[in-house]
Amino acid sequence: MTLSKTYFQGLVGKGRNIATRAIGKTPKGQTPLKSLKRDCISLLSARGQASGIKTALNVHKTYNQCSQAERLEFFEFLLTEFGRPKDKLVEVSKKYSETPSHDNLKNLMQVMEPKRQDLFKRMNMAPGGTMALVNMRTDLLKFLKVSPELKPVDMDFLYLFKTWFNRGFLTMEPISWNSPAVVLERLIAYEAVHEITSWDDLKRRLDPPDRLCYAFFHPNLADTPLIFVEVALCKDIPGSIQDILAPERPILDLDKAKVATFYSINNCLFGLKGIYFGNFLIKQVVANLQQTHPELKKFVTLSPIPGFKDWLVENDRAARFGVSQSDLTFLKRTDWYENVDQHKHVKKSLRSAAIAYLTARQPNSHRLQNSVARFHLGNGARIENIHVLADTSDRGRANSFGVMVNYLYVLKQIETNHEAFAVRHEIALSAPMHALKSKIDKSSDGI
Amino acid sequence: MTLSKTYFQGLVGKGRNIATRAIGKTPKGQTPLKSLKRDCISLLSARGQASGIKTALNVHKTYNQCSQAERLEFFEFLLTEFGRPKDKLVEVSKKYSETPSHDNLKNLMQVMEPKRQDLFKRMNMAPGGTMALVNMRTDLLKFLKVSPELKPVDMDFLYLFKTWFNRGFLTMEPISWNSPAVVLERLIAYEAVHEITSWDDLKRRLDPPDRLCYAFFHPNLADTPLIFVEVALCKDIPGSIQDILAPERPILDLDKAKVATFYSINNCLFGLKGIYFGNFLIKQVVANLQQTHPELKKFVTLSPIPGFKDWLVENDRAARFGVSQSDLTFLKRTDWYENVDQHKHVKKSLRSAAIAYLTARQPNSHRLQNSVARFHLGNGARIENIHVLADTSDRGRANSFGVMVNYLYVLKQIETNHEAFAVRHEIALSAPMHALKSKIDKSSDGI
Amino acid sequence: MTLSKTYFQGLVGKGRNIATRAIGKTPKGQTPLKSLKRDCISLLSARGQASGIKTALNVHKTYNQCSQAERLEFFEFLLTEFGRPKDKLVEVSKKYSETPSHDNLKNLMQVMEPKRQDLFKRMNMAPGGTMALVNMRTDLLKFLKVSPELKPVDMDFLYLFKTWFNRGFLTMEPISWNSPAVVLERLIAYEAVHEITSWDDLKRRLDPPDRLCYAFFHPNLADTPLIFVEVALCKDIPGSIQDILAPERPILDLDKAKVATFYSINNCLFGLKGIYFGNFLIKQVVANLQQTHPELKKFVTLSPIPGFKDWLVENDRAARFGVSQSDLTFLKRTDWYENVDQHKHVKKSLRSAAIAYLTARQPNSHRLQNSVARFHLGNGARIENIHVLADTSDRGRANSFGVMVNYLYVLKQIETNHEAFAVRHEIALSAPMHALKSKIDKSSDGI
Amino acid sequence: MTLSKTYFQGLVGKGRNIATRAIGKTPKGQTPLKSLKRDCISLLSARGQASGIKTALNVHKTYNQCSQAERLEFFEFLLTEFGRPKDKLVEVSKKYSETPSHDNLKNLMQVMEPKRQDLFKRMNMAPGGTMALVNMRTDLLKFLKVSPELKPVDMDFLYLFKTWFNRGFLTMEPISWNSPAVVLERLIAYEAVHEITSWDDLKRRLDPPDRLCYAFFHPNLADTPLIFVEVALCKDIPGSIQDILAPERPILDLDKAKVATFYSINNCLFGLKGIYFGNFLIKQVVANLQQTHPELKKFVTLSPIPGFKDWLVENDRAARFGVSQSDLTFLKRTDWYENVDQHKHVKKSLRSAAIAYLTARQPNSHRLQNSVARFHLGNGARIENIHVLADTSDRGRANSFGVMVNYLYVLKQIETNHEAFAVRHEIALSAPMHALKSKIDKSSDGI
Repeated sequence: MTLSKTYFQGLVGKGRNIATRAIGKTPKGQTPLKSLKRDCISLLSARGQASGIKTALNVHKTYNQCSQAERLEFFEFLLTEFGRPKDKLVEVSKKYSETPSHDNLKNLMQVMEPKRQDLFKRMNMAPGGTMALVNMRTDLLKFLKVSPELKPVDMDFLYLFKTWFNRGFLTMEPISWNSPAVVLERLIAYEAVHEITSWDDLKRRLDPPDRLCYAFFHPNLADTPLIFVEVALCKDIPGSIQDILAPERPILDLDKAKVATFYSINNCLFGLKGIYFGNFLIKQVVANLQQTHPELKKFVTLSPIPGFKDWLVENDRAARFGVSQSDLTFLKRTDWYENVDQHKHVKKSLRSAAIAYLTARQPNSHRLQNSVARFHLGNGARIENIHVLADTSDRGRANSFGVMVNYLYVLKQIETNHEAFAVRHEIALSAPMHALKSKIDKSSDGI
Repeated sequence: MTLSKTYFQGLVGKGRNIATRAIGKTPKGQTPLKSLKRDCISLLSARGQASGIKTALNVHKTYNQCSQAERLEFFEFLLTEFGRPKDKLVEVSKKYSETPSHDNLKNLMQVMEPKRQDLFKRMNMAPGGTMALVNMRTDLLKFLKVSPELKPVDMDFLYLFKTWFNRGFLTMEPISWNSPAVVLERLIAYEAVHEITSWDDLKRRLDPPDRLCYAFFHPNLADTPLIFVEVALCKDIPGSIQDILAPERPILDLDKAKVATFYSINNCLFGLKGIYFGNFLIKQVVANLQQTHPELKKFVTLSPIPGFKDWLVENDRAARFGVSQSDLTFLKRTDWYENVDQHKHVKKSLRSAAIAYLTARQPNSHRLQNSVARFHLGNGARIENIHVLADTSDRGRANSFGVMVNYLYVLKQIETNHEAFAVRHEIALSAPMHALKSKIDKSSDGI
Repeated sequence: MTLSKTYFQGLVGKGRNIATRAIGKTPKGQTPLKSLKRDCISLLSARGQASGIKTALNVHKTYNQCSQAERLEFFEFLLTEFGRPKDKLVEVSKKYSETPSHDNLKNLMQVMEPKRQDLFKRMNMAPGGTMALVNMRTDLLKFLKVSPELKPVDMDFLYLFKTWFNRGFLTMEPISWNSPAVVLERLIAYEAVHEITSWDDLKRRLDPPDRLCYAFFHPNLADTPLIFVEVALCKDIPGSIQDILAPERPILDLDKAKVATFYSINNCLFGLKGIYFGNFLIKQVVANLQQTHPELKKFVTLSPIPGFKDWLVENDRAARFGVSQSDLTFLKRTDWYENVDQHKHVKKSLRSAAIAYLTARQPNSHRLQNSVARFHLGNGARIENIHVLADTSDRGRANSFGVMVNYLYVLKQIETNHEAFAVRHEIALSAPMHALKSKIDKSSDGI
Repeated sequence: MTLSKTYFQGLVGKGRNIATRAIGKTPKGQTPLKSLKRDCISLLSARGQASGIKTALNVHKTYNQCSQAERLEFFEFLLTEFGRPKDKLVEVSKKYSETPSHDNLKNLMQVMEPKRQDLFKRMNMAPGGTMALVNMRTDLLKFLKVSPELKPVDMDFLYLFKTWFNRGFLTMEPISWNSPAVVLERLIAYEAVHEITSWDDLKRRLDPPDRLCYAFFHPNLADTPLIFVEVALCKDIPGSIQDILAPERPILDLDKAKVATFYSINNCLFGLKGIYFGNFLIKQVVANLQQTHPELKKFVTLSPIPGFKDWLVENDRAARFGVSQSDLTFLKRTDWYENVDQHKHVKKSLRSAAIAYLTARQPNSHRLQNSVARFHLGNGARIENIHVLADTSDRGRANSFGVMVNYLYVLKQIETNHEAFAVRHEIALSAPMHALKSKIDKSSDGI
């Protein structure tokens, strides 16, 4: 095996993802899995130093040739062959507990460090290696559901990824209609909140001067945003996602823009599950917009309320907010929002119920029930307003009878809010939201 | 303390190194050190999540304001306050050694993980944070000489840096006269083998078509090469560094270039001590040159032999190679190389002595004495040739009586050579060098 | 009117095309046309020097607000107000013809220079000005059909554009799936030979490693290619556009690529009519591919034969090539290519007819009838082969009964071929094509 | 002659200036000049179309091989062989003056267009061609002094360059310590007002946050600024160039910067003589700084007054301003500025004399005597203040006894000032300068 002319070909030209795309050949008479295992062992051996990058490249190529069953077996191999040796660990931990010397600590540390992490680091040396590892973990996370014993392998992935995807290594970049198609097609693929239905739809979200988009990128995954947020510049705090996404909407004169609305925020890589970027992204976008668009006065989300509908209809809860069975029947009609004027009290009741839901805790816990509220309030935002008829799409009605919520980000209050929320479990509310909640609290006894 | 308008100012415009350059003010009535300690604690606290980047930025600013004494005290603080709690560790390691369950393992792991690494990761979130941490370790390495008890702090730095500066995150870039001055001034600062004496000298090494330079960069340290190698394209394997660096030398027609000579390779950041890039850099430069300059046939170094002179003059060793005391006196004259023809036998003797030195082992070990030989032979290169009168500078004569050596890199033989060297301790030699060494081995009995 | 804060806003951020996109307001009580004329006069006046860029920006904004009728009137204004003053010109030409002194020449030159060119140069100073001028000429070219008296205005456009779009100012860039969407959507818009039906279709032409695309760009029109060529890497000279464009085609291993096929070349900007880029583009793509893909042996087109069908069916010409009326009826069926095996003689006849057509001259002229042949043969290529059933699309059958042709580019023969063609009117043919043509020439008497 | 593998090598890699740097070989038995003439003729011939770029490349290479005498002969060749044919021109101008028809106009136009311009356009197609042409004109301008008959050749250069270097094709770029060394070394070379003495001096002018530099670039001359301006951010309008350039000066906190001072503006390419960029550059820098540094309140120059000393000492003019012969003797001492307090009246007199000089007209003309004043007042600036002891360098004392002047740019007044100056010959003055001038005007009778 030699370092041939194409040794680093992955670095040049078209082959930017060679490690993940290439379909090479397995050495004769070997299954990909056998070859894969052998290369992993080789990668950690003395030889590794001389031909590490090439072997790492092979690992990724061969992994891609493996069937799902082979991949599962590969993860089991990683679990058993590259973990912490139990007997050895029992021995050195006993020694240390008896004599906690520096040397015994060093021994303990050495045995504790799983060879898997070292293996992953060497796999990362190949061009395209980081993406290949993220994809590997994507597979693993699926296997974990049926093979929870693989958890220790995932812990090593997660530990490394948290170190590698440290905020300090990410760059925030605007995404526009001027961005490469290879990046843009990923927005289409990863937008999970309000589906992007076509390239035309995408262009409407990126190209007009009153629409912006920002993402975090990692230098090794240049074509793939890690997380992105879509922003609409508005005159006032918006109360309807339909208005924002309408194909024929009027474009706002930038002089009149007063509010930046974050109307969709999406993580892109399932293989980075458990690493949190959203908090950082929102705050940096706010900070940047304050510099580039000094005319903006408010930074607000227009957020869905997943789970609200289910919460409301269970346990006769609806009735407590004045929503009758016939109201519920009405709300489940696909055209209810066209006739809502005949049921004005329903709108009022939905707002009351929504604030109750958004501030509801999990049983025997201070933890909020609703995950989106948890995220934004945990970031230091406050609940600013609630809108009925705000998302009349199928998904919107199925989640929350179409109700949406604004969370407001005021940079100067973020720390105070965050601390009150994290330490004293207090929820920041605008004055109207505070009034609405007080009214409910008075009228009800512990919903 | 709030996230003000200038929250991320470090990201924009001139302030690219704000974390390391800014000289802010310490809160009233506080020494920088007090403020620094407080911020470190805050950074790991709950508050940290909301205002982490700002606090991290403060940490770096305040650290820069600290005196050397305060910095030393800070590292002691890191040692004692953010290490592994001994009592706790004794407890959980005892528990695990008694009952090696998954839960007890998790406990052990948790206690093992030092909070320092987590602290460093959070410090890294600030713009300029990575460079600031590298500079911090530069300080620490100096303190270590007198305060070896700080070693555990350094181990955490080293562990993190090895993960962050993984080969997979580095990019190789050519450096040319077209590179930013801010990068070029670092070449001048870091060139340690053959000093760059002026911007004119630098231009002579970068601008002519037969001169090249490559470096590894890390995305977060964009202005600072981690390591760089200077390359001269030649007709034949060169035997004199004077010829390569001569201000008035003729420029080689690229059609006639047959040999790429690596005549200087330098690490730039002392704070990255213990992380090795040289091996990877040389191999990738060879691979790249094979693609961009297919006319090149050989890849070779022209390397110094530090320590050769000292080795030769000690213990009457010189005499054994036929170098008399009067020869030595002659060699120590600053102008000996102008009169060398009168002492032809000296040239021959020096070559013999040099091959003996380059292949000499440390006492009771297979490890080579000469560090440069160790590096290149460990990379899989072979000793190709030895040249007397090759470096007539003060440094060259002080190191090795002006003798230099070529190491040859043949990509196809690198793995074999490396394995023979690493496993069987065999030294790869060209045929003439092999002959030279055989002659000495026969004539001597265990020099 | 003052240079306000937003004086150069067109240069920054989103507003890259502000000159062409902005819809400003006309000063009160003025039609856009009035305002436009006034600004043109101002632009050439003394004031112009101080506020030229701002006035030029206004010109483009106001022009965009004008109706078609107003634009036509504007061009008439340009014709009459900024042309050469006839009386003055008669006077100075008379003077010069009587006394051809240096001073009289200078006077003549001054009067000859139309103020329009100067006006256009000043319009060009605005950000986005070059594109705005190209768009202006696009309008003018439409008006010219009904208002041929505007021709002198167009001559000034053409003269300036030829100077500005000199080959030396163009850069050739690869276009890939990594290119900005704003560029790619223009490929979709401008592909006129083989329509791009969707972003998926576009991706199939750009992303696979055996597909390439190159374009000329001008620095001032960065988002808009001037001309682009689509290239397929193939094993052999291809004989069917269907195979090249098939959605499910196998991707060629680059090691096996021997032929680069230019299967579509398109001009993008109608406003640059009369300025020729194709010749330069093809030759530079060939030169670049020879460097980046040294494995390629041949550079060939797969070109349409527009006009062939019309030529063949007129004047009983078909019969002379052995194509009967019933054959023609058969050929006009949309599914004829599925049954072609029953009409083998038709294929043969079509090939003969095609070579006759491709080499046919215009009446009383050496000029070839077919414009595509004229272009490639004029560039120094040769006719390499002819393929029946090569383009079975509606357009392909309508143009040429589906027949296509390969032109071969051999850099070493380009000059010779070009000169033979340009000076001696000789057509370069491959041996088989030469044989085919000889056979026809013998059998026919002056088709 | 064929299009070889290296056909476009000038486009890639190091050879960016190949056209101007390469020293090729002349075909056997030919002088470079013969070869050059032959290629020029070929470039305009039919062959040109097929091999134009290669021939153009040859032209530039051969020109570079020519001696000064050969170059002069070459320009004479351009004058006689590629100009307007006199006889023909007499003929067609006569025809047109008799019958001013469209056809006769076209004929006249065709004969008027000199083939030289067409030749230059074709020379421009070569990589590096634009720079080569600029260098060619640099030579020509030197020859013009002794061979004024070459003027028509220069007119064609100038005409083309004015079209090519239209403001619309230039980009303004900041120059910083982060700029390529190849650009920075040109600042050192072209700074003519206040010499840059070393790379350290250069760094002091570029790197501190209170120092900026901007330049115009043309896309084809990417490494060479056309014109650059050095800017110092200051607290107040500065009155001394020594303070600005002092190596150990304190760096201004950006929060305190209120004034942007343009203290040096330099044209770089002598070959572009007669094309004016300064006016545009200053105004765009002002506009940009207003956006990026909104804290700046004033935009001002600190300008030299070349010619002031000569003007003052001639014709007993000094006496009229109260400067005695002994004062003049004192002023000519190199250390006068250290003892100026003993000659306070001299400072006052110099200020009066300076305002008189700056506003003095040329004999029988409205044109100002001082070219720098003409430039800035023509741009719409006003004379803001005059400083004695402002430039104590040799050059400063030799030009103007060390006196300097501030011109103030107020964007809102530029148009008004410019028009008043251009049309009514009024000079804009600050109130104190107005008062100073009034005083002189009263006390003197037509100095």
